[in-house]
This record gives sequence, structure tokens and C-alpha cells, in this order.
Amino acid sequence: MTNKNQAIPYKIFLTEDELPKHWFDLRPDMKNKPAPMLHPGTHQPCTAQDLQPVFCDGVISQELNTTESFIEIPEEVRNFYKMYRPSPLVRAYCLEKALGTPAKIYYKFEGTNTSGSHKLNSAIAQVYYAKEQGITSLTTETGAGQWGTALSMACAYLGVDLKVYMVKVSSQQKPYRKAVMETYGAQVIPSPSDTTAVGRKILEAMPDTGGSLGCAISEAIEVATTTPNCRYVLGSVLNHVLLHQSVIGLETEAAMAKYDIHPDVIIGCAGGGSNLGGLIAPFMAKKLRGEENIRFIAVEPASCPSFSRGRFAYDFGDTGQTTPLIKMYTLGSGFIPAPNHAGGLRFHGMNSVLSQLYHDGFLEAKAYPQNEIFEAARQFARCEGILPAPESSHAIKAAIDEAMACKERGEEKTILFGLTGTGYFDMAAYMAFNDGTLSDYIPTDEELAKGFATLPPVKE
Amino acid sequence: MTNKNQAIPYKIFLTEDELPKHWFDLRPDMKNKPAPMLHPGTHQPCTAQDLQPVFCDGVISQELNTTESFIEIPEEVRNFYKMYRPSPLVRAYCLEKALGTPAKIYYKFEGTNTSGSHKLNSAIAQVYYAKEQGITSLTTETGAGQWGTALSMACAYLGVDLKVYMVKVSSQQKPYRKAVMETYGAQVIPSPSDTTAVGRKILEAMPDTGGSLGCAISEAIEVATTTPNCRYVLGSVLNHVLLHQSVIGLETEAAMAKYDIHPDVIIGCAGGGSNLGGLIAPFMAKKLRGEENIRFIAVEPASCPSFSRGRFAYDFGDTGQTTPLIKMYTLGSGFIPAPNHAGGLRFHGMNSVLSQLYHDGFLEAKAYPQNEIFEAARQFARCEGILPAPESSHAIKAAIDEAMACKERGEEKTILFGLTGTGYFDMAAYMAFNDGTLSDYIPTDEELAKGFATLPPVKE
Repeated sequence: MTNKNQAIPYKIFLTEDELPKHWFDLRPDMKNKPAPMLHPGTHQPCTAQDLQPVFCDGVISQELNTTESFIEIPEEVRNFYKMYRPSPLVRAYCLEKALGTPAKIYYKFEGTNTSGSHKLNSAIAQVYYAKEQGITSLTTETGAGQWGTALSMACAYLGVDLKVYMVKVSSQQKPYRKAVMETYGAQVIPSPSDTTAVGRKILEAMPDTGGSLGCAISEAIEVATTTPNCRYVLGSVLNHVLLHQSVIGLETEAAMAKYDIHPDVIIGCAGGGSNLGGLIAPFMAKKLRGEENIRFIAVEPASCPSFSRGRFAYDFGDTGQTTPLIKMYTLGSGFIPAPNHAGGLRFHGMNSVLSQLYHDGFLEAKAYPQNEIFEAARQFARCEGILPAPESSHAIKAAIDEAMACKERGEEKTILFGLTGTGYFDMAAYMAFNDGTLSDYIPTDEELAKGFATLPPVKE
Repeated sequence: MTNKNQAIPYKIFLTEDELPKHWFDLRPDMKNKPAPMLHPGTHQPCTAQDLQPVFCDGVISQELNTTESFIEIPEEVRNFYKMYRPSPLVRAYCLEKALGTPAKIYYKFEGTNTSGSHKLNSAIAQVYYAKEQGITSLTTETGAGQWGTALSMACAYLGVDLKVYMVKVSSQQKPYRKAVMETYGAQVIPSPSDTTAVGRKILEAMPDTGGSLGCAISEAIEVATTTPNCRYVLGSVLNHVLLHQSVIGLETEAAMAKYDIHPDVIIGCAGGGSNLGGLIAPFMAKKLRGEENIRFIAVEPASCPSFSRGRFAYDFGDTGQTTPLIKMYTLGSGFIPAPNHAGGLRFHGMNSVLSQLYHDGFLEAKAYPQNEIFEAARQFARCEGILPAPESSHAIKAAIDEAMACKERGEEKTILFGLTGTGYFDMAAYMAFNDGTLSDYIPTDEELAKGFATLPPVKE
């Protein structure tokens, strides 16, 4: 069904039947493939066997895939998707009017589920594969809390136990996020904690640390590898997570096709890269094949600028330096963003596919300090009626800047951005912004140098 | 377009074109009309002129209407609706499976907008009429905070100033609700406050009161009637609010018609009655016309049981006893629910149309203590993936009870309930429930007698 000559509605919904039946992996379309994950001891490419103590078998084959473009979505996962997907593609008529721009702005809104973000797309898939394998409990980390919430929901739905290591500063900023996870039956532990050896070691070295995703990952992995029938799951960074998130891009592509809409610019916020990677996947494939000339922009916080100021190098995914090595843009596994950084997007590295694309010039990056982000968030909330997550607001800010550039140049470009979620559990940060007490922290070169000093020596 | 022979999807969405063009008023279909609103001084039926110092002209004609069944939705309001409506009608497949019931359960979900509830449907309409009349500022009260949030959003969108009197105990329980309203530019004042004469009087009599909707209404009305170019708006109880909320029922009716679904039981939570009245309007009309035999159930908290234990009498809408008199089921304007009552649904009275229908036996009522409500909420969250508002959970609890009765009797009934909103700003209450510290408060007959003692003497 196409509606090419019809007026474009405020929200373009696909029907349940149009929900994608396959996820899409961009790697087969890449000429320069991302470098392989390396074993931290041998520095040899990781095998499936290397990953089995930590990850579920179902996602390992997806993680190591480089040849299959389409991977079937299991029926039980599709049925769960039907509770909150297809998600709406929204034409931002009110924002366009408020900006007075000739640009056409669209956003794919992933915040209509209780986890408040796109994270649920991968959570349900990962818990499904765990359960299929007979795993009875899972561990994970969470920063801003969206991933932990999503995973709690998926675990409650499929009846799998869950232990969440939550970055301490986030658990203090967001006590209600913790309460949501607990309502869904998860056990939530502020990290670093004394429940793991690596947590105790970090606490000894830095007793006052607010924690970091890197610390929390180390703790969760330690528990997964030392508990029978338990595995670790991760909400971003890895390639199988981007694969699951491709449902965002595939739905967007199908919705746009209905009205013959072609984006000129696609914008997404980037922490570990899962939302951005998922949103752009089918569109980037067209660019790589030379079929469409689209600009892609990754937007990150100035306080954790992995792309903008990071190095393209092999690095660990965690502070404890226990994970496989990933070739990525990174600030070093020892980098911890300042505690006054309010939202998520606090991971020190970036997904390897996106890193390669950035390195090869297919992807641009922008970094903003947080007051500008919240200013954009408030403007968006007042005209589009959705109070956005701070993470998502990075994409809003860049989209507004692009739309204003179109206004200056009189260009009618089509801008698409990912609105990954809602800010209902981020009100402490909004209060600080409203009060004028939210600080714009940007790390100095000296501070970044400390992070880079933790990069491991890897011969390539 | 009908899909009568197709499988019913998880979510039935209408298209933007199918969004109702008119609201529906049930009163023309009622044989026994609700008793007219009376002037508090003369005890004569209120005229439009009587109401003009308090309310906007556009809603006064709607409030006093008894003859027009369909009233056009202004285009600007319909365009705003398009940002978050039509809302989904959801088939609760997962809940049905978890309960093992042969019943078919549907819910109309009004929580997909940032206000988190159905309240936005009337907020935008009321602000539209205010702006049309040249009003520059509005006042209102809010209890649980959903109405205040909705009105803040509507006022931000249309550029009208707003002062919200928030029940003090709610503002303490929900500081982040306040922050959302402030992000949308509203001024939020915990009530009772020293900013009004009636507030000061109440504080003098009860310095430690946690406030009530009745108090907050008195304060908001005082400000509206003493400030130039200012009016008061109310989020429930009144007939024009039910009129605006009929968009819920009309969409539900249209979505059900697509699949030839006929509800046997319709359930809604009831505080002032706006959601329940809006949801049932077109279905109740069919019952009144003898076309369909549907059961209707109003669900209220045992701590504020207006229907179940109230009196059918003329009463004030506010504690300060300044409003017109409404014939309704009421606990008396002096009744204040215990502070440990966690959610909304704390108004002492009930809309006059619903009161008349209840009095005439067209509507049943049930009351539940709050731990049972939260138990149902948690069960629903874990299988349907939506963390519900405590208010909405009253309807969930009654729907589960009906579904379990169907299971016992082997009946395949179709149950419809209104899921008015999400509980993302109610986590303090969820935490209390999770911790086992949420108390089940039920007022004694002696406590209710104190409320009844505040009923005004009115000759009928």
C-alpha cells in the first residue's frame, strides 16, 4: 500500500503485518569490515568458544556474523514486539512551524513502551536466546537506567532472574528507575559494589567514585562467569545489539517508502551506538551501495566525546579490563565521565561498525555541552508534546541546528532523527536545568590523556 | 474499512482520518436528565452569566447543553490530537494467557502522551476556548498531577500562562511531577497555600493538612475571579470535561466496529468521572436506547468511595464552598481522603451524569483497598509491559476479577477497560507497595459522617 500522493499524517504507523520479519546486518555491505574482536590474552580473533562463558549462544553467532544480511526475528520476539511496535514515525509539523524552517523534520519515536526507550528491542531478543539455551539467570549493567528497565521487563515476561549493576551516580540521581526495575522483579545493585572482587578493587582505589558503565560491566561479567547457568547481556556497543536495533531503521524505511520520503540527513545520539546503528542500518547500506547520498550524523555529549576526541584503537569494554578487545573509537577504558554529566551516553567507547564507518568518512560526529541539549529538549517538549530523554535530546539539538541551517540557506531538506526515548525518569536533571544549576563540563586534554594511558598495547 | 474475518491484532489503531470530528454528549439520550447545577446563593439553576466570571464562554455552553448530541471538535484541537491520537485499543493477549481466562480483554490506552493520561484530551480543548476568548492566564488544581501536567502542555503549546494549585501531599509525594509542569512553563503552588484568602483560612483551621482537591479548587477559583483576564479550568467532574473525553469512547467504538467486537462489560476507574464518562458515552447511549445490553462498572478507591458509600445530594465542588451546587454522589465537600491514599481519585464527589446513571441502575460501582490495586498493577505490568498509573489500576483490578469470574463460569465474555495512564511519576507509591509499607485505609462510618455534616441544606 502506498500513499505517495496523499498528505503526510502527523504519525505514520505501519500495521502489525508490516512489522519486519528479519533484522538487518550492515556488515556484508561494508567494503572495509570492522576489525575482529580479539581475545584479551592471546590477541587472536575471538572464536565462538571464547565468548561462550560470558554470552548466550544465540547472540554469539550474531556477534561474529559478517556474511548474512538478514537474520530472522524469532516468532516469540515478534509477538513481544507487537505489544509496543511498530513504533510511530512522526512528522514534526509543530517543531517545523516553531523554527520557521522550510526543512521537513521526521523522528522515529521509540519511547512508547514502559522502558521508555529503544532498549527493549534488544532486551527481549537477548532474554529469548538465553531462555532458549536453558539459562536461568542473567546479569547486566545499566547507566541512565533505560537498559536495566528494558531488561527487567523482558526477564519478567519470560521468567528469567536478573541482577542489574547500576552506575552508582545514576542510581542516586534516579531512585525511581531502580523502583521500576524492582517492580519488574530485578535485583538492582549500585556499582561499584562489594559484591564482586573487581568492585571491591575499584572501591579500594577510588572509594568516592560515582562509578561508570565500565566498572558496572566488569562486575556483571564477574558474576555471570562465576554463577552456574548464568550469562551476561549488554545493551549497546556490540554488533548483535545493533542487529536487534535494526528494527528501528527497517520500520522507518518502510514507513517512508509509503509516502515516497527520502531523507537527506539522518541523525542519532551515540553512546555505545545501538540506537544510531539500528536507525541508520538500511539507509547506510544504500549509501555504501552508492544508491542514495545521505549524510549521517552521530551526536554525543561533550563530556564523553568518543568519536570527536577519541582514538581509533583496540580497547577493553570494561574498566576491569576483562572483556575481549574491540577496535573502536575510545577514550580509554579508564575514562569516567564527570558525575555532573546528567544522562546516559557515558560509555568510553563506540560500536566497531560505527567506528569503522566514521573512520572511513561515511559518518560525521558532533558533540554538545549539556545545557544546549536541555534547551533543545525543552523547546521540543513544548511544541511536540513529548518530554524527551536527555540522550535523545542530543539528536534533537543537532536536528534543530540542521533545520536552522536549511532556513538560512532556504533549503527544503528532509531531516530524520531518532527520538530514542522519554525523560520521565530524568526530572532531577531537568530541575537542575530549570534552576540554572546544570553545569557544562568538558574534559581537558590532560584528563583525556589519563584515559588514553589505559589503552592496552595491541599489535595490529 | 472492516476486517471482520481477520485475526485481531495486539493493537487496533485508527488512521488519522478516522479521528472523530465531533465529541458526543450523552445527555440527550438520557430519559432522566441530571439535575441542573444551582447557583450557590439563590439555589436557582445556573445561567451562562452566572458561570462567566469563573469559566470560559466556550465551555459554558457545553456545560449547560442538554439537547445537542454531537459537538464539533475545533480544527486546532483536532490537529493537537493528531500528535498523540488516535490512541491504541489493545487486546490484552498476554494478560488473558497469564490469567488462563476464556474472556477476551481489551483496553483503551490513553498513556502514550507525556502528560501520561487522558487528561490532555480536555486540557487542549479548554485552553483553546480560553485563547479564542482572549484569556491570557488560567488557574487550576491538580491532585495526582496528571491534570496539571496535561494543562501545562496545552498552555505551553498555545502560549497561555498557567498557575497550578497542587494538593500539598501530592506535591510532596511527586516532586518530579512538579518539575515536568515547570519545564512546560507553569507556576506550581502546593495547596493549601498562603497565596489566597481561602488557603490562609484552611491553613489556620488545619495547619497540618495535606490538602485536598476541594481546597486546591477553592484557591484556584479565587485567583481566577480576582485576576483580570483570567479564568479557571477543571480537569474532571464537569459535563464539558466528559464531553471532551468522549473522544476516548468514540475511538474505541470505531476500532471495535472494524473487527465486529461487542463488549459485554465496560470498566473504568472513577474519581471525578471524566475518563469513565468519556469511555462509556457512546456505549451507554446504546444501552439507554435498548440497542445493546452492556454492564458498566465504575471502580473507586475504598479510601474515597463516592459512589459506594456516598449520598446522592446537592453539594459544592470545593472545600471553600464557593462553587455552584451539583447534584451528585458525594462524601461531602469537607471530606479529605487520608494522606496515605497514594494515587489520584481523591475528589469527594462524582460527575452529575454518572451520578444519575448510577442512581437509575445503569451503572454499577466497586471499591477496592489500595494494596489489591497495586497487586493488579504489578501483574499487569509484568505481562502487558506497561507500568500503569494507580488510578488506572483500579480498572485493571476489576477487569481481572471479571475475567477470573468468566474463567470459573467458563464464559467467553468480552471485557473492555480504560487504561487511563502510566505510573512513571508514582514510583514512591510503588516503592511503598514493593516494601510492604503501603497501608489499606478505609474510612470509618464516623469519619464519613463528618463529611456528610458539611453537605449544604438544599430544597429540591
